[in-house]
Amino acid sequence: MRAIQDFYPEDFSHCFGCGRLNEHGYRIKSHEDGDAVVLRFDPEPYQLSVPGFTYGGLIASLIDCHAMATAAAATYRAEGREPGTEPPLRFVTARLQVDYLKPTPICPLEIRARAREVGARKVLVDAELRAGGEVTARGDVVAVRLPDTMRKP
Amino acid sequence: MRAIQDFYPEDFSHCFGCGRLNEHGYRIKSHEDGDAVVLRFDPEPYQLSVPGFTYGGLIASLIDCHAMATAAAATYRAEGREPGTEPPLRFVTARLQVDYLKPTPICPLEIRARAREVGARKVLVDAELRAGGEVTARGDVVAVRLPDTMRKP
Repeated sequence: MRAIQDFYPEDFSHCFGCGRLNEHGYRIKSHEDGDAVVLRFDPEPYQLSVPGFTYGGLIASLIDCHAMATAAAATYRAEGREPGTEPPLRFVTARLQVDYLKPTPICPLEIRARAREVGARKVLVDAELRAGGEVTARGDVVAVRLPDTMRKP
Repeated sequence: MRAIQDFYPEDFSHCFGCGRLNEHGYRIKSHEDGDAVVLRFDPEPYQLSVPGFTYGGLIASLIDCHAMATAAAATYRAEGREPGTEPPLRFVTARLQVDYLKPTPICPLEIRARAREVGARKVLVDAELRAGGEVTARGDVVAVRLPDTMRKP
């Protein structure tokens, strides 16, 4: 099954977190699962904060990009469209909040996100990160449609 | 002048963002400047969100680690101690909030941060990111003393 990021327009597929065309980046893949959107990610051993635990900046990055995919998926759904239909949808982050509830071990991670509000321009997304089945971080993200100031002339 | 991260204990100097011993990481350096703490960072061309603009996950990571250094510096000051004196101070993030006010171009970045409240266990930090002299993002971060659950046995 194609990921939400696989439907991003080529011009906007270079993001370090979620761009399929950025060979240096994380190239995360977000998939719809019922009313949620799920991301699975295995941190590298060097992506640590203190020994044994996942780097908080990586956690913030994953939640951020995954929330943008969740916003796109929710908006396609709200508009009764399939991902990939025209015009394409691409969101950027207006506000990112991450609560680090407890240390996140370095192990396979799962983030489940849901859009709690889908507006014409703005989507609010809740995300929950689990490590070994335990919730270790929560995200609250404001996504907005890609502004014209970020489009190439 | 030594950076605040240069005084982190060796065991806690492996962080991907600010650990001087993590050869894969950003190895940021935060320096005191009056009542503020300053970080300068040059993003790599591939650390982008959409073409021309800095990756938001990198911005969140820099604000996060720089805020931890700011919390350490403010606490040393509040305790009337020089950085590097015993016992060492090391903070981790409880909450990270970043407001992306406008797109951040890929150019030399400067983050200035200040502790607005220094508690016994918790420090609140405000951060402002400038690109080309313009404020493009703001951070509001809650730092807490490294919990025992993150210390090696």
